[in-house]
Amino acid sequence: MTFCRLPRPHAVTLHYADEISIFDVAIKAGVSVATVSRVLNGHTNVREPTRDKVLAAVAASGYRVNELARNLRTAESRLLLAMVPDFGNPFYSAIVRGIDSVARQNGYFMLLCDTGADPGRERSYFDLLRGRRADGAICLDPATVQAALAEHVSTLPWVACCEFDPTAGVPYVGIDNHLAAGDAVRHLLGQGHTRIALINAGHGYLYGRQRAEGYRDALSAAGIDADPAWQIDVDTLDYVAGEEAAKGLTRLGRHRPTAVFAVSDTLAIGVIKGMRGEGLRVPDDVAVMGFDDIAVAAQIDPPLTTVAQPMRELGETAARLLLKRLHDPQAEVPGVLLPHKLMLRRSA
Amino acid sequence: MTFCRLPRPHAVTLHYADEISIFDVAIKAGVSVATVSRVLNGHTNVREPTRDKVLAAVAASGYRVNELARNLRTAESRLLLAMVPDFGNPFYSAIVRGIDSVARQNGYFMLLCDTGADPGRERSYFDLLRGRRADGAICLDPATVQAALAEHVSTLPWVACCEFDPTAGVPYVGIDNHLAAGDAVRHLLGQGHTRIALINAGHGYLYGRQRAEGYRDALSAAGIDADPAWQIDVDTLDYVAGEEAAKGLTRLGRHRPTAVFAVSDTLAIGVIKGMRGEGLRVPDDVAVMGFDDIAVAAQIDPPLTTVAQPMRELGETAARLLLKRLHDPQAEVPGVLLPHKLMLRRSA
Repeated sequence: MTFCRLPRPHAVTLHYADEISIFDVAIKAGVSVATVSRVLNGHTNVREPTRDKVLAAVAASGYRVNELARNLRTAESRLLLAMVPDFGNPFYSAIVRGIDSVARQNGYFMLLCDTGADPGRERSYFDLLRGRRADGAICLDPATVQAALAEHVSTLPWVACCEFDPTAGVPYVGIDNHLAAGDAVRHLLGQGHTRIALINAGHGYLYGRQRAEGYRDALSAAGIDADPAWQIDVDTLDYVAGEEAAKGLTRLGRHRPTAVFAVSDTLAIGVIKGMRGEGLRVPDDVAVMGFDDIAVAAQIDPPLTTVAQPMRELGETAARLLLKRLHDPQAEVPGVLLPHKLMLRRSA
Repeated sequence: MTFCRLPRPHAVTLHYADEISIFDVAIKAGVSVATVSRVLNGHTNVREPTRDKVLAAVAASGYRVNELARNLRTAESRLLLAMVPDFGNPFYSAIVRGIDSVARQNGYFMLLCDTGADPGRERSYFDLLRGRRADGAICLDPATVQAALAEHVSTLPWVACCEFDPTAGVPYVGIDNHLAAGDAVRHLLGQGHTRIALINAGHGYLYGRQRAEGYRDALSAAGIDADPAWQIDVDTLDYVAGEEAAKGLTRLGRHRPTAVFAVSDTLAIGVIKGMRGEGLRVPDDVAVMGFDDIAVAAQIDPPLTTVAQPMRELGETAARLLLKRLHDPQAEVPGVLLPHKLMLRRSA
């Protein structure tokens, strides 16, 4: 027994009236939506009386044939999801602007979802995708990416951005986190620092692991074993977490590090405030390096030395990879690594 | 001639399978969706043979009756739009988190739209609302709000947040911008400043006009006519715009103001950098006040004196007003003013 399967009701353009009318026409004409589609698209395998009924129903509907036909052809919601773990981190807003810009250029809306790095929220956003209420997703969230690696790899159209596992077979764009962290550490080593702290993201961020390895490998290569007391994992990537971490480091007294590498600028800015609060001057008493190069990094005093990620390009590339995958689900979509850059300012 | 009008195809929960099946069942049974609805909801005004046909079609579909019925009852997309002029301003991300939190608590997704303060983009997002692909909108964007005041007031479910005209008959939440700007100016006057600059948002922000009046009225009340050279309108509210504005003020030489009130913290942080670049110390040579109290305001050196807006509460309240309006379109939804607060730190 065959079952009449309708096109997805939301699989249409943004015009409510049109969206309704395809179904209206089918029911009014007493035919399937597939038949309406064949008539509107000019297929010849429709009997004359049926065609007449459909065209009469279209005429009665008051809708234009062209718009109906267009809606049937575009089985897309024209929505792309961008899932970020935290709206509040300016790093994500810069990337999201890149995604939004490419999406709009290509006739899509980008819808931003804050997962709070919560697997439950992540899952509910993936349900939008699974239900075809969105066409594709770009995930910047570690929970999303890791759950997706387990569940969604081959079945749903999504791209990993910044958080990625190059071995997972999922299209991704990011930077070489291992190399970038190594470059930061080598810059500090080159300034004569040997006691270098790492303030890193907890919560199982993939980039956190990649950067921690880059940090340890760069120290190792210089003959230095990283002291575990210099490696602090924080739960959130905000200013306050950085401030607290700085206070923790100053408690090491004369064993405290002379340089701090934080895996986000928000953390690094908090570290500078925390060090100032403990009476330490940056960079004279302690050097501080961040990561990302968010807009405010150049504004503060001292301006923050950091590893710049090409945030807008990361977002734009992620959107292009996703559109490529949507356009041709069989296409090879590559993993892309974009270049990072040391921004030498005054904090280190 | 009556025309068979279907429920909105997207007016369902998030389950793709269910969404399809209502239409499937109607077409399979050769009846209208309204009839399917009556059967599933247990109404008695359906003839026996028709009821049998519907139930047979339901059985053949493999879908559960309860889910179908639930979908028919919930004529909602469960999406709320939040339209902001600029993802990149941390002020908006804090508000958006408040919206998102209340939306999720009530079973809605919040979808964030960056209008870029561009009327064309604003219109395309309102089309999502007009097409019932979203249930309601919260607008923080001046273009949106002002276009909406002209076009959408009575027809679409939306709430104005931060940008509002209390005389327009649209539900809104914000702060008393006139009073808050006056409070900032009175604080500077109280510290002995009489030459107080205003760095304000251009682009026709409603709050910009409200704060400019508060600034001028507070100066007037102190017997001071605001010098037009002290009042600078900027096109964007970012750090760089503040830095440029500061440079402009220093060019006034000995006529330069001794205090600067900027209508956003991003501008104020840029002003501090600009003043530092010109060799002026904050607050010794020039006092700087901001507006909003974004997270980084407390981090910089000197920490920024500012007017705190209750950002999260603004977002939460906007979402509650919108949900109230969605729940009962006839209900009186009030305008709400939330309290602001002076945050006295070291920059002024």
